[in-house]
Amino acid sequence: MNYSLAIHGGAGTILRSSMTPEKEQAYHLALRESLIAGENILAKGGSALDAVTASIVSLENCPLFNAGLGSVYTNEGKHEMDASIMEGSLLEAGAVSMLKNIKNPILLAKTILEKSEHVFLCGEGAETFARDNGLNFEPDEYFNTLFRKEQWLQALNEDQILLDHNGLNEKKFGTVGAVAKDRNGNLAAGTSTGGMTNKKFNRIGDSPIIGAGTYANNNTCAISCTGHGEYFIRGVVAYDVSCLMEYKGLSLKEACEVVILDKQVRLGGEGGLIGVNKMGDVALVFNSEGMYRGCIKEGEGLETKIYK
Amino acid sequence: MNYSLAIHGGAGTILRSSMTPEKEQAYHLALRESLIAGENILAKGGSALDAVTASIVSLENCPLFNAGLGSVYTNEGKHEMDASIMEGSLLEAGAVSMLKNIKNPILLAKTILEKSEHVFLCGEGAETFARDNGLNFEPDEYFNTLFRKEQWLQALNEDQILLDHNGLNEKKFGTVGAVAKDRNGNLAAGTSTGGMTNKKFNRIGDSPIIGAGTYANNNTCAISCTGHGEYFIRGVVAYDVSCLMEYKGLSLKEACEVVILDKQVRLGGEGGLIGVNKMGDVALVFNSEGMYRGCIKEGEGLETKIYK
Repeated sequence: MNYSLAIHGGAGTILRSSMTPEKEQAYHLALRESLIAGENILAKGGSALDAVTASIVSLENCPLFNAGLGSVYTNEGKHEMDASIMEGSLLEAGAVSMLKNIKNPILLAKTILEKSEHVFLCGEGAETFARDNGLNFEPDEYFNTLFRKEQWLQALNEDQILLDHNGLNEKKFGTVGAVAKDRNGNLAAGTSTGGMTNKKFNRIGDSPIIGAGTYANNNTCAISCTGHGEYFIRGVVAYDVSCLMEYKGLSLKEACEVVILDKQVRLGGEGGLIGVNKMGDVALVFNSEGMYRGCIKEGEGLETKIYK
Repeated sequence: MNYSLAIHGGAGTILRSSMTPEKEQAYHLALRESLIAGENILAKGGSALDAVTASIVSLENCPLFNAGLGSVYTNEGKHEMDASIMEGSLLEAGAVSMLKNIKNPILLAKTILEKSEHVFLCGEGAETFARDNGLNFEPDEYFNTLFRKEQWLQALNEDQILLDHNGLNEKKFGTVGAVAKDRNGNLAAGTSTGGMTNKKFNRIGDSPIIGAGTYANNNTCAISCTGHGEYFIRGVVAYDVSCLMEYKGLSLKEACEVVILDKQVRLGGEGGLIGVNKMGDVALVFNSEGMYRGCIKEGEGLETKIYK
């Protein structure tokens, strides 16, 4: 059986006009590195779960994306991160929300999947579990990237809760994610985010919600979403794709298109998703201007894209 | 169009042997009061959303159930509550998690549905939003009911994270919930819980998760769950019922039975759910020994039950 892997680094209004060739190249390079990190595992016969984790860790460690190191600032000038992961053979899952100072939230989600009797841990409790399990912490300064600080100061100034805002007329749903099928036919999906710039009230989006931002089932598909979280929660987006495949017989591509290009558009939700099915087909579907994305299938070339 | 209303007060191993006639009567009375609180609204032509809220407030204010006043103790001797609510016409939703000192978590979830641009708020941020919107707070002492304190001390002593434990050989998934269809054909569902006795790590169950513990859609059904939250999250239980109806053409009853009596049993998840569809049919399905439950349909009698 062949392996497949797809990743995303967020969707939104990504305008060519505000992109420099250098910046564009940096994004492609980062997406490529993430794909290679995951592929290294799949090519050795490793699991989809491990590959998805490796690809997301790579994106979390890159300041270009709103997750891990590159997480945006909350209203209080802190960084609060969410993540979730699921594997499709036993439907096991792990999710975390409102994390501070955890270097790689996806590793904590995976540790919960593997070691906890619980699925979803939050805030200080999740951090205590992380400490007990030896996960890496970083001081506030690690997350204080200049670019994100400028965004935050601008948002504070305008008193706006911003999406991962990239300057004039750009809005981005800053999330990273990966989906994979391994050589054993197992599927997995994971998602990680730094949330919304200047957010208040400890808002939780779809990224840590199993069924909304992340879902995996060997019988259907593995899905990771990036979009306006409130709409993706109300649409139970990731599981909706799986149900359209399982109960209505749609293909992965058809199901993703119904959910993102029809149902989410009617609900008012902007964003996209990546998916892989048990045959190793890949779908990268979005209703926004662009989505940082990439995929690789065994025996075929690696591909990274930004715009439509 | 006729209205319908169903409620639950948790599922689990509810043994006749450890129940006294007085206790049993108290449960029936509390369920009855909750149904009447909701029916008063529906009979006047009020909305399913308001009815569901009124029924859940009634259960939250009763010390017999693990929600609001009767919430169990966390490991730290505190009370942490979760709730969610959804209405089926516009698919609007509100959810809260890790709340302390909020008298009626379901009222906060409803306020989020009605007034916030967000869907899911958590912890101190949710409490700040509650304060800004004039919700009632209660001091710790309000939630310090003798019965729950004894459970907690026993659990601490045994170093166990307990479900809503009722003494010897009993385990209960302490949650309350309501679903309704109003005279305008609108559906709504809500769920509220005090979580697990002696829980650590700020564990979040299915109750505040739209799609898992709560879901409503006028085209299909309104669902509120009570069960082992981890399994209900992994099964995306509430939305699964809706999808089986919408995509596979199953009836409400058939869909609930597939999800609770087949899929959850295979996954290892114990618990149940209540549902109502657009015709006003009601389903009360559980795979545990019992479920505190009740329902009323316009023109038919009110019914409350505990055992199978």
